[in-house]
This record gives sequence, C-alpha cells and structure tokens, in this order.
Amino acid sequence: MTGSQPLERYDVGIVGAGLAGLTAARELTDVGLDVVVLEARDRVGGRTLGTSLSTGDVIDRGAEWIGEEHEHVLELAEEFDLELCSQYHEGADRVAVGGELFEGEDRLRALPPEAAAELRDAFERIEALRREENPDTGRWDGKTLQTWVEETMGNQAAREAFEAYFRAMHAAEPSQVSLLYFLGDSDGGDDPSEDDGYSFAQEYQASNVGTEYRFIGSTQHLSQGLAEVLGDTVRMEEPVRRIERRDDGVTLVSDTGRYDVSDAIVAVSPPLIERIEHEPPLPARRRALGQRMPMGGVVKCVVAYDEPFWRDDGYSGVVLSADGVVTSFNDVSPPDGNRGLLVGFIAGDDAFEWSDRSVTERREQVLEELRRYFGPQASEPLEYTDKAWSRTRWSTGGYNAVMTPGTLAACGDALREPVGRVRWAGSETAIEWPGFMEGAIRSGKRVANEVLSDRGERES
Amino acid sequence: MTGSQPLERYDVGIVGAGLAGLTAARELTDVGLDVVVLEARDRVGGRTLGTSLSTGDVIDRGAEWIGEEHEHVLELAEEFDLELCSQYHEGADRVAVGGELFEGEDRLRALPPEAAAELRDAFERIEALRREENPDTGRWDGKTLQTWVEETMGNQAAREAFEAYFRAMHAAEPSQVSLLYFLGDSDGGDDPSEDDGYSFAQEYQASNVGTEYRFIGSTQHLSQGLAEVLGDTVRMEEPVRRIERRDDGVTLVSDTGRYDVSDAIVAVSPPLIERIEHEPPLPARRRALGQRMPMGGVVKCVVAYDEPFWRDDGYSGVVLSADGVVTSFNDVSPPDGNRGLLVGFIAGDDAFEWSDRSVTERREQVLEELRRYFGPQASEPLEYTDKAWSRTRWSTGGYNAVMTPGTLAACGDALREPVGRVRWAGSETAIEWPGFMEGAIRSGKRVANEVLSDRGERES
Repeated sequence: MTGSQPLERYDVGIVGAGLAGLTAARELTDVGLDVVVLEARDRVGGRTLGTSLSTGDVIDRGAEWIGEEHEHVLELAEEFDLELCSQYHEGADRVAVGGELFEGEDRLRALPPEAAAELRDAFERIEALRREENPDTGRWDGKTLQTWVEETMGNQAAREAFEAYFRAMHAAEPSQVSLLYFLGDSDGGDDPSEDDGYSFAQEYQASNVGTEYRFIGSTQHLSQGLAEVLGDTVRMEEPVRRIERRDDGVTLVSDTGRYDVSDAIVAVSPPLIERIEHEPPLPARRRALGQRMPMGGVVKCVVAYDEPFWRDDGYSGVVLSADGVVTSFNDVSPPDGNRGLLVGFIAGDDAFEWSDRSVTERREQVLEELRRYFGPQASEPLEYTDKAWSRTRWSTGGYNAVMTPGTLAACGDALREPVGRVRWAGSETAIEWPGFMEGAIRSGKRVANEVLSDRGERES
Repeated sequence: MTGSQPLERYDVGIVGAGLAGLTAARELTDVGLDVVVLEARDRVGGRTLGTSLSTGDVIDRGAEWIGEEHEHVLELAEEFDLELCSQYHEGADRVAVGGELFEGEDRLRALPPEAAAELRDAFERIEALRREENPDTGRWDGKTLQTWVEETMGNQAAREAFEAYFRAMHAAEPSQVSLLYFLGDSDGGDDPSEDDGYSFAQEYQASNVGTEYRFIGSTQHLSQGLAEVLGDTVRMEEPVRRIERRDDGVTLVSDTGRYDVSDAIVAVSPPLIERIEHEPPLPARRRALGQRMPMGGVVKCVVAYDEPFWRDDGYSGVVLSADGVVTSFNDVSPPDGNRGLLVGFIAGDDAFEWSDRSVTERREQVLEELRRYFGPQASEPLEYTDKAWSRTRWSTGGYNAVMTPGTLAACGDALREPVGRVRWAGSETAIEWPGFMEGAIRSGKRVANEVLSDRGERES
C-alpha cells in the first residue's frame, strides 16, 4: 500500500466528492489551482443519491429538502437548471403517540391540548436557553437531551412527540446527544446563542422551515453538475487509505495512486476520518472527537402509488410517530400529482436493527404502518424501495454525525481546526446550517478560503 | 492490498496479540488447532508495556495493578514465574479539591467530614441502585453519570472528589458515560445487579480493591510468556486491513499476507474494529456500537527519585486531585524501597490536550504538581518518562473504551455477538472484570470456547 504506486503532484488534494469536497474543488480550480478529488465510491454526491423508480419517477434516496434561506443550494440549482417544487402541505397531519392516533392542521395542533401546550412551552424554553446570556455550557454538555426532556415535560404524549420529532430531524436518539449540542445545533461551537440558521422549535411548529422545497429530480444533480464542471479532477473508486503530513505538504495514498499535494482537504463523514491511516497520527483531541461523533441511523423508505390517495381523505401525508418503526412520513409526489409518493424514515436506534433485516421485512412493516395512517389502499403500492444508510461503507450512517455528551467540552474545537496542512470540511463542520446540504456547501467554501489564505501567507 | 499476497490456511486467525488474543490462541493451539495471530505492532501485549528506566528499574507504562481475585492473571504469573509485590499503602493519602489540600488515612477520610459523609452516602446509593430489583434501565442509560452526580451531591468537594476518582479509575469523564454503563460496570450487559467482580464504591473506600498487587517487572511479561509458548504462531507488524466473511470461513488480509481461516477472532481496541474494512460490511448494530465506544484518554507518567522521600513525611504517595492536571498519583517504588517511583495519570479530557504537548511541558507540569503534594524534593527526579496512549496508533487511547449514553440500549448486545464466523474478544467484552487484565484473559478464554463449541456443532 505504500511506495509502489505512481506519484502525481497537485496543489490541493481533496478526499471525498460529496457536496463539500466538490464545492471546495470548484472554488480552488476557479482560481487556477491544480486540484485532485479522490472519491471512494463509484459516484459523486456522498449522502445525496438519486435513482429512478420503475414508474420513471426520480427519487431522492438521500438528502432531499431545501429551505428558502439555503442560498448556496439555490444558487447552484439555478446554475445547473434544477427545478424546484414546493413541499406539499395541505390537509391534516397525523401524530401517533402512546398507541393513539391524532390529526390536526399541524403536528402540534394534532396533539391533545394539554400535550400541545406542554410541547409549546418546551419549545419556548429551548429558545430561552439558547438566548441565555450566561449559558451553563459545562452542565448542559454533560446532560443528555433525554434527561432535559424528562425534567421538562410531565405529559407523556408531549414527551413522546418531542422525542419522535428529534429522531425524525436528527436520525439520533435524545439519549445519545448532549443538551448543549442540541441547543447549539451541532456546529461544534459551544455558544448556543450563535444563530446557525436553524430552529428546531420553529421547524416543528411550522412543519417545514428549512424544508420548504425539493427538486424535481434529485439533489444528487448538484454534485453531478459540479463533477461535470470539474471533469478529470474527480477520480472515482479511489478510497484514500493513508495521509502523510509533512511541514511542506501532504501525501494522499490510495490503493492505486500516491498524490503529493501542498494542501489537503478531508471532506468525509466524521467517523471515517480515523479509518484513514494518518502519519504522524492525528493530535489526540482530533482523534478523541472522531471517536465521539457517531453517525445517526437511518433507513429511508419510498413507497409509490398510482395516486396520492391520502390527499382525497384530507391528509397531508405528514405523519410523526412515536409508536411505529417509521418515525415520520412525508408526501413527495410529483407536483402534478400524477403519482403518489410517500417517503418514510426509520430513524435512530430502530434504524440499526432494521438495517440488518431484509428489504421484504422492511416493506411489510412500512406498509402495515401506512395502513394504520392512511387505510387499506396503502397495501397496494406500485413499488417499494429503501436505502439503509447505516450499512453503507462510505457514509456509515445518516443523516449526520452527532455529538455525544461531553464532546464539545473535550474536543469540540478540533472540528474545524486544521492539522498541519490538512483541513476539514463536510456538513458537520459548517458554522451555518450544519447537517444540511447548505452547510456542506458552505463548509466547502470556508475550507477553500482557508487554503487560499494560507497559500497567500506562505507566498508572501 | 487484495489479491497479490500469498495465501496461507489456518483453522483460526486472531487479530491482535494483547492478552485476550494471545490467551485465545493458547487455548486453541492447546487442543491442536492451527492458529495464526496477526499483530499490528512490533511487540505483543497491547495496552501492557514494560520498559526500563536509566536507573535499571523496570516500569509499567501501561496496565499495572492486579487484584487478589484476578485468578487468571495470578495463574499465568505463576506459570511464567512472575513475582508479585503488594501495593505500598502506609501513611496518609492526599486529596486536592477546590484549591485546597487535605490528608487522611484514606481518600475518604482525608476529606472534610461533610464531604466525606456525602460521598459515603453516594457510594451507598450506587450500591442500592445496583441492587434495585426493577432497574429503570432506559432512563439510566439516557442519563450521564455527571447528571446523577449533580442530582445526588450538593457538596462541592464531595462532587469533585467523586468525579476525579471516576476519571482516575476509568480515564474518562462522568459527562461522557451513561449512568447505566457506570452501574453495570462496563460489561455490555444492562443488568447492573449482575456481579462483574468490581466495586467502584468499595475501591474508593479501601483504596486498593482490585489493585492490591503489582509485578516486580512488568505486566507485559504475561503476554511475552504466552508469545514464547506460541512461537511462530504470532506474526508481528502485520496489521489486518480487511476481513472477508464467507459462510464457510473468513479471510484476513494484511499488507503482506492473506490468511484463509475457518474461524476468526478480533481482539483489538473497540474503535479499531471499524478501521478494518469488512466485506460484507458489519451489521448496522455492530457498526453503531463501534462508533459509540470511544477510548478514554490517558497519559501515564512515571517519576523516579533516589528514594521514596514522601514516606519519611508520612505520606503513602496516593494523591487524588480534582485541581491538577494529574488526576492521581501512586507509589510504585521497588519493594526494597531502594528507589522512589511515583506514577501519575493525566486522565480523561486533560489527557487529550496534554497528549498533544511536548514531554518537556508535561514533565514541568507533573513536577509542579508533585511539589504541591510532597514538597521541594519533588523537583529533582532522577528521571521522568511518560506514555501518551491517546496518541498510539494501535490502542488509540486508554485505559479502555467506555459506553456513551444510550449505547447499551441501542446496541449493547452487539458487544459479544459473533458476526458469522468472526468473534469479538478484548477486555471490554469481558463479563467479569471488564476493563482489567483479568477481563482480557477471561474474554480470550470465552471466545476460544465459543470457537470450539461452534466447530464441534459444525462437525456433528
């Protein structure tokens, strides 16, 4: 694995051809640098992935929704002529908690009044905590979100809805993340009052803040568009096995090539960073962080029907469930309504167990749950397909890596801190909109700027 | 990395030549099986490591203490003629909390009475929780030990002493582990009342339960003795990069060799399991576990003096400190007292930061703290040396991997669950004495028995 491969030289080497890596590559080639992007998979796009159903509909098996404030995504979409559509949201949402099924004009109002009031109160407390002038960061980081929920909410339905919603939004369990991380919304900083663009509370109540739009087509087209612009710069099926740091540069070693570069950018899922052999070993804080940011768990399920029949019954297709294996459903039918498409998420711990079962078992389970929400018509889909991200070699989970309690205090600032000439990108490293495609793009721009400014300083 | 290496065949292939892997190898060769042990390092012993000081004294840079109930360690020590000595424990212990320095006949009685009473009470509560007939496992697993400490102890000194002691014993932060894991003492089971041999509370009060003895020499001799018995079975500097599972066997691939084996045993630090490429990928629960068991952080520091001068001042050499960077000190002078040796642990989060500093900086810091506890004589050691385990490539931290909140619930039972013909050993997988050398040996015996019984079933 060392020594025998041919050697190539570039200004910048980038590990990972997701949105972050490709964005960085584009920024750097635009100013005339020689760049190589090394991608382990046989495709670009990382946690975005579009495929066609037998019906011809293109669906997103990975990241899907876009918010109206996601300016970088929208800019890229315009450049590549990608068409947006609004997320359908007419009719009643359904909420399943404690074995009971409720409906209402949104997920909050669907709940019994007492539960809704307590949930609304919890959201206010979250916002108050985030605005706190002297946040008790040490204590908040050492407490799980689950503990806070238990302390805050006495109403069982409110608690279950909150937890299910967290699961749906983060594909992780409230028991597994720190309250501080939750309040700070995952950007690796420990000041929860820094606005990172996203509001958990607002999102729940408005049902789709940050998720107003989808593409007609797939979000993977963003990466495919970038890859087309970049051409030969992007090398597929070249997993980087080893990163050698020197004072004056970095060598990236794959199974088939060695790349001597002046600067390197690593833009992969956080748990994968330590799977690469680093020489010399990474600093202890960086390694500690890599061991304390597990990926969430998710199976994304798509069910296609002749038509969006639930709309006729007055349903929006939105389901939030603390009862079922599928935490949430959404209607992603084509805008003309010619087909009915529902997307469901098995998220958090359930995703681990269900990732290891067969697609036939998952199909049966998903259809059974859909029958509960939308009646017997749900039994006869045109097609069922799903993607178990927790089984993928090169994402190793989804949607994102989360921070376990005590991680921000121990090593949070290692998230973006360069190690010699190796820098870190990826949605989790974004200052604004971490965990979203918008964050991935922003992280790519940020890290490209870091490289350029460092090169400028070295030359002057 | 695949295809071109020569192929060898064995009955059993073992990854890792620590105490667990070597014990399993010994058990299996003893019954006539053909075994190969593949070790990444150029030495055996994993997290045990003996070296000589310039004074000629042999010291343990890794695992050191042995309890009188550690029957498997003691048996092995007898086989290899290793001599034990008792841990020195005469004179007063010192406890540093809140900027104040206390002393007393043990670490509990050193504290101000109010703090001592509260700490004693906390230990009783721990034992009561462990005995609880209907343990609230879900809630306990979703709560950090830190939150429990905050709920339980109002006295600041008691709390700090407790946290420092946890840090010293587990090289991790109370903020980072689940209460259930703590109560269950780390064996991956979620029934805290199952006795795994170890009592945190007893240990604090008696000062050395489970740590009554050391070797004259090093604990690494246990592994070296086993390796000598095993001979050519153990291959050094052969990190396994890839594990291919088939229904009828497993192929282990290193940089230089391919090993076709009927059964495989992986006996490495838990975070390293996913650094190996598994084909097919491991089940999602097993992968989730690998991402949720970070290694603790530790720098083990050894300071050598002409004589154990602190004994003359009536001190035992035991220090527990919530103030300093070094969490605890112990006297590990040779039994004849001809030299004075103190061992100190920078443990938990501090270990990450201090691992990244120079040995000169660490030396200065450690000596400064020793002056506080034992006076100006501490300034003039014969030698200072340390080992930053968090920087090691093949342990990637120490003493052990711990479980973050929610991990037992999500995937705790994947800890020992075989995946096809791949089985898991290592101290963390032990049912009794996990986290100790005794646990490592027991895990090696357990997994060897699993292999034998599975082979028996296959043949019948």
